[in-house]
Amino acid sequence: MIKAQTLKGFRDFLPKDAKKREYVINALKKVFESYGFEPLETPSLEYEEILAGKYGTEGDKLMYKFEDNGKRKIALRYDQTVPLARVVAEYQNDLPMPFKRYQIQNVWRAENTQKGRYREFMQCDIDTVGSPSLSADAEIISCALETVRKLGFKNVKVLVNDRSVFYFKTSFDISSDKISFVIRTIDKLKKIGDDGVLSELKKGGFAKEEAEEILNGIKNIKETNSISNIRTLLKDAGVDESLIEFSPSLARGLDYYTGIIFEIVSEDYPYGSVAGGGRYDNLIGVFSGKQIPAVGISFGFDRVIEAMDELNLFPAGLSVTKVLITNTNEKKALEVGKTLRENNINTEIYLEEKDLEKQLKYADKKDIPFAIIFDKDKLILKDMIRRTQETLTIEEILTELKKP
Amino acid sequence: MIKAQTLKGFRDFLPKDAKKREYVINALKKVFESYGFEPLETPSLEYEEILAGKYGTEGDKLMYKFEDNGKRKIALRYDQTVPLARVVAEYQNDLPMPFKRYQIQNVWRAENTQKGRYREFMQCDIDTVGSPSLSADAEIISCALETVRKLGFKNVKVLVNDRSVFYFKTSFDISSDKISFVIRTIDKLKKIGDDGVLSELKKGGFAKEEAEEILNGIKNIKETNSISNIRTLLKDAGVDESLIEFSPSLARGLDYYTGIIFEIVSEDYPYGSVAGGGRYDNLIGVFSGKQIPAVGISFGFDRVIEAMDELNLFPAGLSVTKVLITNTNEKKALEVGKTLRENNINTEIYLEEKDLEKQLKYADKKDIPFAIIFDKDKLILKDMIRRTQETLTIEEILTELKKP
Repeated sequence: MIKAQTLKGFRDFLPKDAKKREYVINALKKVFESYGFEPLETPSLEYEEILAGKYGTEGDKLMYKFEDNGKRKIALRYDQTVPLARVVAEYQNDLPMPFKRYQIQNVWRAENTQKGRYREFMQCDIDTVGSPSLSADAEIISCALETVRKLGFKNVKVLVNDRSVFYFKTSFDISSDKISFVIRTIDKLKKIGDDGVLSELKKGGFAKEEAEEILNGIKNIKETNSISNIRTLLKDAGVDESLIEFSPSLARGLDYYTGIIFEIVSEDYPYGSVAGGGRYDNLIGVFSGKQIPAVGISFGFDRVIEAMDELNLFPAGLSVTKVLITNTNEKKALEVGKTLRENNINTEIYLEEKDLEKQLKYADKKDIPFAIIFDKDKLILKDMIRRTQETLTIEEILTELKKP
Repeated sequence: MIKAQTLKGFRDFLPKDAKKREYVINALKKVFESYGFEPLETPSLEYEEILAGKYGTEGDKLMYKFEDNGKRKIALRYDQTVPLARVVAEYQNDLPMPFKRYQIQNVWRAENTQKGRYREFMQCDIDTVGSPSLSADAEIISCALETVRKLGFKNVKVLVNDRSVFYFKTSFDISSDKISFVIRTIDKLKKIGDDGVLSELKKGGFAKEEAEEILNGIKNIKETNSISNIRTLLKDAGVDESLIEFSPSLARGLDYYTGIIFEIVSEDYPYGSVAGGGRYDNLIGVFSGKQIPAVGISFGFDRVIEAMDELNLFPAGLSVTKVLITNTNEKKALEVGKTLRENNINTEIYLEEKDLEKQLKYADKKDIPFAIIFDKDKLILKDMIRRTQETLTIEEILTELKKP
C-alpha cells in the first residue's frame, strides 16, 4: 500500500490551523480594502523566462522549473512582484494608474527545509505601482501598521531607512561590486552587534580602519529629507510619531530597492519583523521597457501566525460551528437545524441517531461551544465549555446563541 | 525584451474579476460553515505515487508531473478528493469522525485548451467522510441547494439518481467491461436524445434490440428506496419536495461513485449543472487499507461565475472602495481619510495633488461610487454614478456613505 505522506517542506492545514489562516487573511483583506487596494490573482505557472534571472543566482536555483507536455519551459510562482510586473506590462492600457493591488497567494521555493523553511508558503503583498510620490510610501506604511494593530499586535513600530544612506562618503573607494556585501553586512548590526559587523567586513576584504569607518559612517548618518517627509505625511494621517524609528542599519536583503525601505516590528515578538518592504523603481518596468515607480510591503504570513500563537492573539471563538444538535430524533433535529440556520447560526446536526455520550465527545473534539439535546418535546442547551445545561424554548436558545 | 504573456490555459484575474471570485468564495464558505463544514488545505505538490492511477489513463496523461531537485517524482494537485483520502489516512487518529470538510483550492490539468478549458482552475468541494448514513447524503444536497440559492440562482432543482439503477436486469448479459460505457452513454440522454443514445450504444457493439432494451429499462426504472429516503430527509430539513427530481439517466462521469449521485441545476442556465457529486464508499480508504464511506459535492466554480454573469446575479456594488478623496490639499485629505476609515468606510486617497478632472476620471475607471472634493474649508460629496454633488458636513458624509 502507498504510504500516506506529504513532501518535505509542504504542509496540510487541518481545520484548526486552516481557521487561523482564514482569520488572518480576512483581517488583512479588510484593512487592505479600507485603503483602496484591490485583489489581483496571477497563475501559479509562468513561462520560465518571465521569472528567470529576476531573483539572483540563488533564486534561479530554488525555483521549481520543469517542462510541460508541450515542451514549454515553465516555472512555479516564486514571488508576487515579478508576476505583478508582467501584469502591468500585459494590461498597461486597461489598468488604472496608480495601480494599487493586494495579492495573497502561495509561492514555491525549494528551500533547505532543515532551516525550518517551507517549500510552499503564502505571501501577502500590497503594492502601489505608477506613483513616484512619497505619499504612496507613507500610505503603505500606514496601512501596514493598521493591519498589524488590527491583528492585535501591541508595541508595534516601523523601522525606516533610505537606501541612499549607504552611498555616504568614505575616505576610500568602495568598489561597486562590494556595495551589496556592505549593505547585507550592515543589515545584521542588530543581530550580531558592532564586533560582528566589523569582523564580517574584515573577512570581506576591508582593512580594520576601513571597516570602522563604514560602521561609524552608518551610525552617524542623519535622517534624510525623504524620511522626514514620510514622517510628516504619517503624522498628518494620524500615525503617532513615536512609532516611526529611523534605523540607518536597516538594509533589507533584496537588491532591487531604490529608495525608502521599512519593516514593521513588535517589541513583544523579538524574533524578526512581521512585514517589510520599500520603494523599487526599476523592477516593474522590466517587461514594459520603461521606468515605472513602485512601492510595496510583504507580510511574513507564517511568522504572523507563529507570533499570534505565541502572543495569544487569536480570539477564543475561532470555531466555525456554534452548536451541535445531537441526534436522537432526526426529524426534530432537522427542523431545529433549519430554524437556527435561518437565524445565521452555524449549526451542525449529528449525522446518526447514536449514543448521546459519543455525540457530545464529537462536539468536544471539534471545539463546538454548545450542544442541543432533546428531552422528549423539550430542548436542553448545553454549554460545552462551562459544562452547564438548561431547558429552554427555541426562542431562548436563539437569544443565547446569537450572543457574540 | 521578454514578452509579457501568460501560458495558454492560465489566467490572470484583474481586480474586477478577482472581486467576483471573492464574492462567490465568501458566499460558499458562509453556507458551508453554517452546516458545520470546516476548512482544509492540502499542498499543491504531492508525491506522484499518491495521485497516479487514481484518475484513470486520461487523468495520468493530463497530470502535471515532474522531478524536483532531489529527484523525487512529484505532481501538482489534480483534484481535492485524493488528497482528502491521503489526509484521512495520515491523521486518522486526530480527525473527528465523521470528518466534514470544505476545500477551495486550485487544481491543474493539462487539458486541451481549444475546448475552452483551463489548465489551472479552482475547485470548491464539501465532503463528509466516515458516515454511511443517508443523512449525510441528504445534508450535502441540502447544503448545496442552499448555496446556489444564496448566490441568487432561481428555478433551482436537484437531479438525483442511484448508481444501483444501472444494474437492472436485462434479458442478455452486459459484460462487466461494458458497464462503464453504458453508463456514460445513458448520461448523455438529455443532451443527445433517444436516437443519439441508441446510435451510440449500437456503435459500442450492442444489437438494435439490446440497445432499445437498455434505454427502455432506464426509462421505466422506479425510484429506489435510497432515493425515497433522501426525499423524506430533505423534506424534514425543509426542502420543498418539488425541487427533488429522480433522474434515472443521470450517471456522472466518474467511475468511483457507489450510491446516490446528484446534480444541482438551474432552469435559467441550461448549459450544464452548477454542482455535482455523490456517494463514493471505496475511494477514501485507498491509503488506509479499510473501507471508509464518503459523500460529497463539487461546485463548478468557473461555470458558477459564468452563469452568474449571464444571469446578472452579481450585486452592483462589488467595488471594494466606497469613496475617493480627491487630493488638492494632502493634509486635509489625510485627516478626512482617517475619519472615514475609523467609521469602516473603504477610502482611497488620491496620491498626488493633481488636476481634479484627472482624479475624477481615475475614480470612474475604478468604479468608485463616491468622491470627496475640497472647496476651501467645505466638503463636497460627489455621487459618481448619478453625477450629482452636494456640500455637506463630515457627519452628513458619514451618514450618506454608511448607507448600504
